[in-house]
Amino acid sequence: MKTDLKKKRIRTENISKRAQNISVSLIKEMSMLADAVRGGGGSRIIPFGQGVPYFDTPEYIKREIIESLQQKDTRAYTLMPGINELRDLVARRLEITHAIKKIDSRREVMITVGCQEAIACALSAVIDDGDEVILFTPGFASHIQQVIHFGGKPKFATLKEIDNWAIDFVKLEKAVTKKTKAILFANPANPTGKVLTVKEVKLLAAFAKKHDLFIISDETYDFLTYDGIPYFSPASLPGVRNRIIVCGSFSKKYALTGYRIGYAFAEQGITSQMMKVHDALVICSPAISQKAAIAALKNSPASEKSTAEFVKGFSENRERICARLDNLGNFFSYQKPMGAYYIFVKYDYPKLDSRQMAQKILNDIHVVVIPGSAFGPTGENHLRFSFGGTPEDIDEGFNRLDKWVASLR
Amino acid sequence: MKTDLKKKRIRTENISKRAQNISVSLIKEMSMLADAVRGGGGSRIIPFGQGVPYFDTPEYIKREIIESLQQKDTRAYTLMPGINELRDLVARRLEITHAIKKIDSRREVMITVGCQEAIACALSAVIDDGDEVILFTPGFASHIQQVIHFGGKPKFATLKEIDNWAIDFVKLEKAVTKKTKAILFANPANPTGKVLTVKEVKLLAAFAKKHDLFIISDETYDFLTYDGIPYFSPASLPGVRNRIIVCGSFSKKYALTGYRIGYAFAEQGITSQMMKVHDALVICSPAISQKAAIAALKNSPASEKSTAEFVKGFSENRERICARLDNLGNFFSYQKPMGAYYIFVKYDYPKLDSRQMAQKILNDIHVVVIPGSAFGPTGENHLRFSFGGTPEDIDEGFNRLDKWVASLR
Repeated sequence: MKTDLKKKRIRTENISKRAQNISVSLIKEMSMLADAVRGGGGSRIIPFGQGVPYFDTPEYIKREIIESLQQKDTRAYTLMPGINELRDLVARRLEITHAIKKIDSRREVMITVGCQEAIACALSAVIDDGDEVILFTPGFASHIQQVIHFGGKPKFATLKEIDNWAIDFVKLEKAVTKKTKAILFANPANPTGKVLTVKEVKLLAAFAKKHDLFIISDETYDFLTYDGIPYFSPASLPGVRNRIIVCGSFSKKYALTGYRIGYAFAEQGITSQMMKVHDALVICSPAISQKAAIAALKNSPASEKSTAEFVKGFSENRERICARLDNLGNFFSYQKPMGAYYIFVKYDYPKLDSRQMAQKILNDIHVVVIPGSAFGPTGENHLRFSFGGTPEDIDEGFNRLDKWVASLR
Repeated sequence: MKTDLKKKRIRTENISKRAQNISVSLIKEMSMLADAVRGGGGSRIIPFGQGVPYFDTPEYIKREIIESLQQKDTRAYTLMPGINELRDLVARRLEITHAIKKIDSRREVMITVGCQEAIACALSAVIDDGDEVILFTPGFASHIQQVIHFGGKPKFATLKEIDNWAIDFVKLEKAVTKKTKAILFANPANPTGKVLTVKEVKLLAAFAKKHDLFIISDETYDFLTYDGIPYFSPASLPGVRNRIIVCGSFSKKYALTGYRIGYAFAEQGITSQMMKVHDALVICSPAISQKAAIAALKNSPASEKSTAEFVKGFSENRERICARLDNLGNFFSYQKPMGAYYIFVKYDYPKLDSRQMAQKILNDIHVVVIPGSAFGPTGENHLRFSFGGTPEDIDEGFNRLDKWVASLR
């Protein structure tokens, strides 16, 4: 008996369909492959993979973290939906940035373990098995896995690459069925850097109203647009209050990706449901991270300064990476990102699919890029580069790519 | 049109059944009610509610947190399954404490957002809609909600209160159906403080093998038993390796509840599935909390000292709270806890159910206790007291309760 059991492996039928249907996003898989390569020695890894800002957490936030260690409540669970002060600060901030009247911070705002958990709570609260969620393709890899994890079916609406990733509203209409429950997108977008125009946002809101859909708005990069392009959230429109779920983040704006701190804002009928899910998944967001977020929102002059510095740095990185891509001739082609710090690059090398391509680049020259296939059915033959890293890493990565591309020819 | 939409509330049919079927655990609800009472002024709130140790995070961990702020990777996502060093430390620790041979830390250990998220990942990976999970009643409130959240059906096996919450193996057998997929329990248990005997653990393992069930073992309080009672994990038994999922925590042992840091250990076929869920829910556990956990596991002499101090304090608290309960005569009756820092007290006051009782105690004398009904079908007419708080709070709480009980008579 004992021997039999020892021999027995986990059988597939014992694993949930939910888990079988999803995969680790290729973004994390590439990080893990890179870690294995790093362990094997050789030249330094150049990270164009996971989107981590190269800036360190601002000093005024670090000081607050150190001070918070003297406050005894930092060791303890916070209230399940978050520290009241932080929820108030998020509400007041959204009232200004999103032109929303009177947000009830106790009923409409919750603090989450990053934007990822906010979206998980939103999806769990609104979709049942077999419900459909519209995603853009290319779109953020984890959104696809999150929808499937909660029993939903992603329905993809293709973006117009040649038109700098504009929404194709004809295709969008065609993606709707009776089972469509929500539309989920990041704006500014990941992996394309697309920023929705005010007109597109208005049309999206009208579309959601017409088909009675929830709008799950991933606003992780709301602070990061280039060339003066305005950021406009659907939450700023009248009449969407009962269907909008804003999922926000402190990760990129304040260099806090490792702190796992984000928030959700929605009408109380939705938020109360999302809170139940949040309780079942994680109990509460980390107290020390919530205090870091309070520091960020309370110290407006300091945070405006650090954010402006970040935006300037990423803007310069954008020019740098575009110049280096141009330098490679027609091997790579791209649409210049309007926001975020990703560029979704098409490559001209039909021999390898994007997964093979990313693996080969990692193995050959220790440069991490993310396979385009992670980002939906139209992502193939592309690679995502993050330009959130240092200018030096961009240069070193492209010095290696220059030689590597030449060697392929 | 605009007015119509503004008037329209969220309709129930737009919320997922999953969310509709669960509720915020009464533990968190009482915390929120207490917060509202606190906002109203009056006497200080005495917390016998949520289980937060009264000790502060040990200084050697705080020092490490401060130092980690100088390491640039603290700001960034860690690898999705956690920092390799921490996974190694957890593996080596479990090999010793659980007498497990050769744990593959890269494939069998993952770091989570507290034990809660470890259990969420375990449940999501093994149950589909309609699958049944056996829970003990009374048992941990959140386990019930977590099972329902992932589409599972809790099947309750009643513990024998008069026999100090011993497992009734006859009732346990009767709880099994063809749909039973797993058994989930905390040991030492919450809310009863029951510690499973070695014999009970062996019988449970045999039971799980007989019915081909996963064992999800919530080991949050593995360090906390009294009177020299040994702690014994089912993971220490041969032949359960392919069905055991150990969910552990740094929260209580190192006074890190607010840091949201725990871990899971299981055979790689299970862990690989849980990692996918973890990625979809939270990306990774907070880096700063992982570094706190590394400090805890690396500094054995310091951590052994702080843990011994905690255990001594809680042991004294146990004597204190039992003496104060005894002092109230037959209004309260209880089984003396064998571990953890909860006592599940039966009250003799048929006029009020446990929810009304907890609400009345909060309103009348600003003392937080948790209604027994939160802990399963046999929890009614009980209240859970945490004695994780300070001795002073225990005294003050019972000074108020003495008068309050007298006033009821």
